[in-house]
Amino acid sequence: MPVEVTVEDLKQVFLGLTKMNVAGFNVTIPHKINIIDYLDELDPLAATIGAVNTICVKDGKTKGYNTDGEGFIRSLEEKADISVKGKRVFLLGSGGAARAIAMTLAFHNADKIFIQNRTKAKAVKLADEINKHIRSCAEVVESLESQRKAIQTCDILTNSTSLGMHPDEHLLPIDESLLSPDVIVADIVYNPLMTKLLKTARDKGCTIVPGLGMLINQGAAAFKLFTGVDPLVEEMSEVVHSLMAPK
Amino acid sequence: MPVEVTVEDLKQVFLGLTKMNVAGFNVTIPHKINIIDYLDELDPLAATIGAVNTICVKDGKTKGYNTDGEGFIRSLEEKADISVKGKRVFLLGSGGAARAIAMTLAFHNADKIFIQNRTKAKAVKLADEINKHIRSCAEVVESLESQRKAIQTCDILTNSTSLGMHPDEHLLPIDESLLSPDVIVADIVYNPLMTKLLKTARDKGCTIVPGLGMLINQGAAAFKLFTGVDPLVEEMSEVVHSLMAPK
Repeated sequence: MPVEVTVEDLKQVFLGLTKMNVAGFNVTIPHKINIIDYLDELDPLAATIGAVNTICVKDGKTKGYNTDGEGFIRSLEEKADISVKGKRVFLLGSGGAARAIAMTLAFHNADKIFIQNRTKAKAVKLADEINKHIRSCAEVVESLESQRKAIQTCDILTNSTSLGMHPDEHLLPIDESLLSPDVIVADIVYNPLMTKLLKTARDKGCTIVPGLGMLINQGAAAFKLFTGVDPLVEEMSEVVHSLMAPK
Repeated sequence: MPVEVTVEDLKQVFLGLTKMNVAGFNVTIPHKINIIDYLDELDPLAATIGAVNTICVKDGKTKGYNTDGEGFIRSLEEKADISVKGKRVFLLGSGGAARAIAMTLAFHNADKIFIQNRTKAKAVKLADEINKHIRSCAEVVESLESQRKAIQTCDILTNSTSLGMHPDEHLLPIDESLLSPDVIVADIVYNPLMTKLLKTARDKGCTIVPGLGMLINQGAAAFKLFTGVDPLVEEMSEVVHSLMAPK
């Protein structure tokens, strides 16, 4: 049941929901950060990310989690048939989704995370937080030359900016000459389902990971937290794809 | 979406719901009276009944209604193909459902409402309120002789007690000798769907009005208040009956 709530009403709705005999609920933009003020407990990964998308209610107490990064990693592991442990990742962006992905990758023992962002200060802040609070594995990339060098050493390239999203479907977040067939290319954008980045990478022979898998798997991880039950991810995926298909 | 709420949590849940972008909601036992304290406005019929089952939320303001009596009358009109205007009704019971039915009958210009209740004081209170606040048309019945005389003059006999409800399905709320074929017999009990009263009345040749119709029609009336749209009552009825059918 989707519910649209204003920033002003968040606390009142949160308090109501906690007494409505529900196992939990999700929040999304613009509530992922503010909701933390109202929670009884916070999962360590969500605390490090500084954002919550999943709230469990148990015995009248609320606990916040962040399954966005987990959703990304599961989608990557599912589509590219790999584990992120020991892998090197090049990450474009430093917004909310990038934070969740980068920190969850560090938690899951990725070997190296390169971060590049239009506003360098945000990338530096994110890398510093990862290196300080999780593991020293993050590095900011700035020049085109260091970008090219870094990507050459990486297993996975991830776009976690909104570049390429409808209505700017013609945009590519990086120069296509940087894509070689041995790099797995993931995108968090799922509108369109096949972004220009994914199409270009596929044409170059890369394994690609579309963004809808992250959406589905963050929901599946939340369902598991709410219920203790592993949902049928394949059936969820079929339903989501059928709902997203052009009419 | 059914939600179980404790009496202590009612206010907190009510306040949350009013900010959840919903058109309205229903409440049932034990919240029909207490909820009135939290409403911005109260429909006159609901105010007279002193109980609310339907809350509409519009432009951030809440207004309470009571569609229980309306649901009963529509069910009666539908099943027995009559209007209650000018009719004489014999009502068994003086609880919450009886109050809603009796007062709505008075609002809809029933000619006479006889009320009989195990605890006479409650029947007197209900009749007094009707005569004072709506129209002078209610009369309390006490002795067996006056009961028999009153029923002989009535068009409709209604059981609004819980007598005959599962697991006491063998109970009859009145002596069966009082049932003659020219009286329409209605029951508010819908578990079982066919109460002993309804079966007995049917065997005597009476037109009968089962309780499930009131449940369906109070919901249909609430739907109309929430949305402004007349729902498809026949299809609602089919769904409810299929859900109530023995497995």
